[in-house]
Amino acid sequence: MLEKINKPNDIHKIALADFPQLAEEIRQFLIESVSHTGGHLASNLGVVELTMALHNVLEFPEDKIVWDVGHQAYTHKILTGRKEGFKNLRKEGGMSGFPKRCESDCDAFDAGHSSNSISAGLGYVRARDLQGQKYRVVSVIGDGALTGGMAYEALNNAAELKTNFIIVLNDNNMSISKNVGGMSSYLSALRTAEVYTGMKINVTKTLKKIPKVGTAVIDTMRRTKSSIKQLIIPGMLFENMGLTYLGPVDGHDMRQMMKLFNEAKRVEGPVIVHVLTQKGRGYEPASLHPDQFHGTGPFDIRTGRQLAVKKGSSWTDVFSDVMVRLGKDNPKLVGITAAMKAGTGLVAFEKAFPERLFDVGIAEEHAVSFAAGLALGGMIPVVAIYSSFLQRAVDQMLHDVCMQNLHVVFAIDRAGLVGADGETHQGCFDLSYLTMMPNMTVMAPKNGTELEKMMEFAVHAAGPCAIRYPRGTAYQGLEEFESPVRYGKSEILYRGKDTAILSVGSMTEVCEQVYKEMKNRGEDPTFVNARFVKPLDTELLDELAKDHKLFVTVEENVKNGGFGEHVAAYMEACHPEVRVLPLAIWNRFIQHGEIASLRAKIGLSAPEILNAIEEYEEQE
Amino acid sequence: MLEKINKPNDIHKIALADFPQLAEEIRQFLIESVSHTGGHLASNLGVVELTMALHNVLEFPEDKIVWDVGHQAYTHKILTGRKEGFKNLRKEGGMSGFPKRCESDCDAFDAGHSSNSISAGLGYVRARDLQGQKYRVVSVIGDGALTGGMAYEALNNAAELKTNFIIVLNDNNMSISKNVGGMSSYLSALRTAEVYTGMKINVTKTLKKIPKVGTAVIDTMRRTKSSIKQLIIPGMLFENMGLTYLGPVDGHDMRQMMKLFNEAKRVEGPVIVHVLTQKGRGYEPASLHPDQFHGTGPFDIRTGRQLAVKKGSSWTDVFSDVMVRLGKDNPKLVGITAAMKAGTGLVAFEKAFPERLFDVGIAEEHAVSFAAGLALGGMIPVVAIYSSFLQRAVDQMLHDVCMQNLHVVFAIDRAGLVGADGETHQGCFDLSYLTMMPNMTVMAPKNGTELEKMMEFAVHAAGPCAIRYPRGTAYQGLEEFESPVRYGKSEILYRGKDTAILSVGSMTEVCEQVYKEMKNRGEDPTFVNARFVKPLDTELLDELAKDHKLFVTVEENVKNGGFGEHVAAYMEACHPEVRVLPLAIWNRFIQHGEIASLRAKIGLSAPEILNAIEEYEEQE
Repeated sequence: MLEKINKPNDIHKIALADFPQLAEEIRQFLIESVSHTGGHLASNLGVVELTMALHNVLEFPEDKIVWDVGHQAYTHKILTGRKEGFKNLRKEGGMSGFPKRCESDCDAFDAGHSSNSISAGLGYVRARDLQGQKYRVVSVIGDGALTGGMAYEALNNAAELKTNFIIVLNDNNMSISKNVGGMSSYLSALRTAEVYTGMKINVTKTLKKIPKVGTAVIDTMRRTKSSIKQLIIPGMLFENMGLTYLGPVDGHDMRQMMKLFNEAKRVEGPVIVHVLTQKGRGYEPASLHPDQFHGTGPFDIRTGRQLAVKKGSSWTDVFSDVMVRLGKDNPKLVGITAAMKAGTGLVAFEKAFPERLFDVGIAEEHAVSFAAGLALGGMIPVVAIYSSFLQRAVDQMLHDVCMQNLHVVFAIDRAGLVGADGETHQGCFDLSYLTMMPNMTVMAPKNGTELEKMMEFAVHAAGPCAIRYPRGTAYQGLEEFESPVRYGKSEILYRGKDTAILSVGSMTEVCEQVYKEMKNRGEDPTFVNARFVKPLDTELLDELAKDHKLFVTVEENVKNGGFGEHVAAYMEACHPEVRVLPLAIWNRFIQHGEIASLRAKIGLSAPEILNAIEEYEEQE
Repeated sequence: MLEKINKPNDIHKIALADFPQLAEEIRQFLIESVSHTGGHLASNLGVVELTMALHNVLEFPEDKIVWDVGHQAYTHKILTGRKEGFKNLRKEGGMSGFPKRCESDCDAFDAGHSSNSISAGLGYVRARDLQGQKYRVVSVIGDGALTGGMAYEALNNAAELKTNFIIVLNDNNMSISKNVGGMSSYLSALRTAEVYTGMKINVTKTLKKIPKVGTAVIDTMRRTKSSIKQLIIPGMLFENMGLTYLGPVDGHDMRQMMKLFNEAKRVEGPVIVHVLTQKGRGYEPASLHPDQFHGTGPFDIRTGRQLAVKKGSSWTDVFSDVMVRLGKDNPKLVGITAAMKAGTGLVAFEKAFPERLFDVGIAEEHAVSFAAGLALGGMIPVVAIYSSFLQRAVDQMLHDVCMQNLHVVFAIDRAGLVGADGETHQGCFDLSYLTMMPNMTVMAPKNGTELEKMMEFAVHAAGPCAIRYPRGTAYQGLEEFESPVRYGKSEILYRGKDTAILSVGSMTEVCEQVYKEMKNRGEDPTFVNARFVKPLDTELLDELAKDHKLFVTVEENVKNGGFGEHVAAYMEACHPEVRVLPLAIWNRFIQHGEIASLRAKIGLSAPEILNAIEEYEEQE
């Protein structure tokens, strides 16, 4: 069957009776492909039938599907003729793991972050209506993404719509990990409700047919409170918000889904179709451990075991351990995660101190202002959020934390290049948005031990402190340098003259090679681990200005607003005789690929840094 | 009565029978005070009784009230002993118009932006519980703020709570202007529901008492859809989310409110008390025109007329006019506002093209991703949001607009210092967060005419474009300079030598005085209107480097990541022989005060700029 799917809409040629076989073939193809390349598996296995059902009732590229987050679009890629792309999935120059408009005109919206699909879909709908066009718009959002506030902002706004807009609630009862919060409980209740497939009974009319009793019941209903939750009317919450609700429907029963989607197409207004799916469906290891198979490396299909051998502790592991240790010493320490307990390394902390770990759901904005309240209430909150997701909470950091100068610690994982997830997940802006914030202290560790020390420092500091560290194995080199972390002080690793290399965090490992090579060549550079990006260690800069001609700053962050610019501006003002060569990411987004290869491409590998220094020196 | 209120908790000494008189006196005091100083009137008049009722059931400073936005805390300030402060309300060095912890230990959380009070309140609650403390936490949030997604993130998270947390929904059926969206419709329906004051009837039990019929009704209810909205059970939406709902209650009936608050205190878990208030209550001009009396200048109490004479068109007016003109020429142009139709100047556009103006509610995140969808659907969206509120949508601008390089225009009003609203509203970060974004073009106009031209340019450009302009009267000087706006090109106003002044937007008016004074002194500086902050006009910088020794950059933005740093870094790299003096806001938040006076304080007035240049030249 899968051979017949080579371009968009080919699914229309498949007989309905053959759909289950096609679903099975797609599933096997996905398991096989991802076992070689790695990728998002569990989420994609969950939506095979859902995607087929949607494709069967839609026409591409006219109709638009906006995939929320986008880690569930593999079947969509297959059905739009990108089967071949799976050979190089998430590889440099290969197919992205997320929807990408540059790959296909059947991808309506580039995705990566959560909870924005209803907003984008509504934009398409309004544009369509204003131009008198007739295409269909479908936003597919998971129940996890529904904990993100902007999804609710969009639902609230969509409620005013008088034309068709289909929102598919892909409910697998999971974010990356188990879902949390009131909405999740509500959906749990809905899941057990009788499947609703379109019957329309006017309850008031029905009740009124029962004289007296009916009216009494209506009155009672109006006055009733405590048992409301026992009376689950499917979708009441959404209906109350002004949306039509259809469902729940079994997300692996294609006939039922298509029936509901066709009904949804007839609704004049926004309609939510509640689809129940199972993450990891059809592959036992993934359905048993959907969190482990959310994003996976290559694995052995038979056993489900990861093929890659773990190369020592990750930065996340180091953070995880130090949180537990600090938590033992200090009963005021609390951890906050936005639906990323495992990813950010807070599972051990929760195990040790269950009442002091708060998983707030995919809700970075709330996470940060919640932390502000905790700090004012006397706790020391550590907010652990990936760099690119923390972009969601810039205002909350600025307005609720920094303005009140509250002692909140930000543990920012996945800072810098993250690799295969690509441009939506690269954490290349944090140094810029963090250093613009008054009162904020910004640090980056050179190795795992220094991350520990910085966490200790941050927990005992005053005011907001951010520590950014990268994805992957924590660097274990440079262990011999272990000077205590002091506020605003950089660390001199090697004191030389003429050229000073100032590296930020993850770049220290890379710059160590640069330093060694320069020494091999008979040069005697200075090598400084910046440690603090804010405040700058201007005392050290002044000191180094005395016997250095060139400062080379190296950071995995965009140039604008980054460490290099701050240093350049300072040196320009105070030591114009010293040249600054800021090596950073220049005004661009970075696609997916291997981190080492990407670094080479953008000039942040050791050989490229050496070249840049050489070229600069020749030019002078 | 008001004389008896001099410190926190003095209200406990007032007999309940005297409460109405005290309310009346507070109201008169507020009207009288604000008529002299200006300030937020309508929102404050609406919550006089609500605040009194809360103060009567709480104890300060032990108990905490977190006021959302904070423009409704005047009665709270009076009741906590700050009556005298109203003489200098919102004046430099005087009392803030918002809650401020530095003013009183009865202010639990500094406020200004919307929709964060439940998050902060929940933080307090969790801290209280972890430490075994017993105080009360009350978050007071308006129905308008409830359109902000983070409020929903917080409700979702609060639903898991097993201890007391009171959320007062101050429902006046308004944001600053009329509310929008599904939640607003839902609340409208609730408003007409019978006031619920605590009766608990178990509906299932009640129904089951009616044999057969009861069971049938339950079944019918379960299966029913279309008429659900007719069956309003108060608070069902909140109850479904896992919160207890009490209300609605008349927000001007103190006895009823206190009864409900006391009941709320007994709930083990999060409880929403739905209070209906009237904006502008007790002062006819304000109750008739609550939007005009939301934030007001000094006014004549008798007539309600503003005392200040309008000094010509504001920047907002200019934007308003050009939007209508561009909208006539281009049917693809659409406007988006986040509950600030009047404030951002989109009322005329809506009048001219009602179907092309979208008020999405207080929902900046959604606004931006919605615009991304509109752009992909073929429209040209103009998103008009104040500078400090746009901080909410940094990720959406970066991830949904810039990454896809979509043609979305950002009209950023209230950029730079805004004056009396103070630190939460100063728009002093936008140049930093905008210029870190790849693909983003960033402009700032010198005068009203240039704002028009930049809007024309932006609407005809490709990719994301941001234009930032300040609060207040549009500058009408420098009209003789009218070179066309070209991508990435600055405008030379006066070509001299030695010193070049490079001003950004609002600072051009100020720098004109600097230039004139320098000419008077016999100097011959160059004066450049930067126009583009991103990309930098490096061609011009190269050219000026030939015969200038000093570049002075002047901007109303923080130094880190701002125009000056970008110029300094560029000059450092390419023209180290030229010095750069970056004048900007240094790593701090700016309190409330008159804009002119604040500028002088932070070194951005003409005399201060002159001084800085002189000092610098002497030092060299």
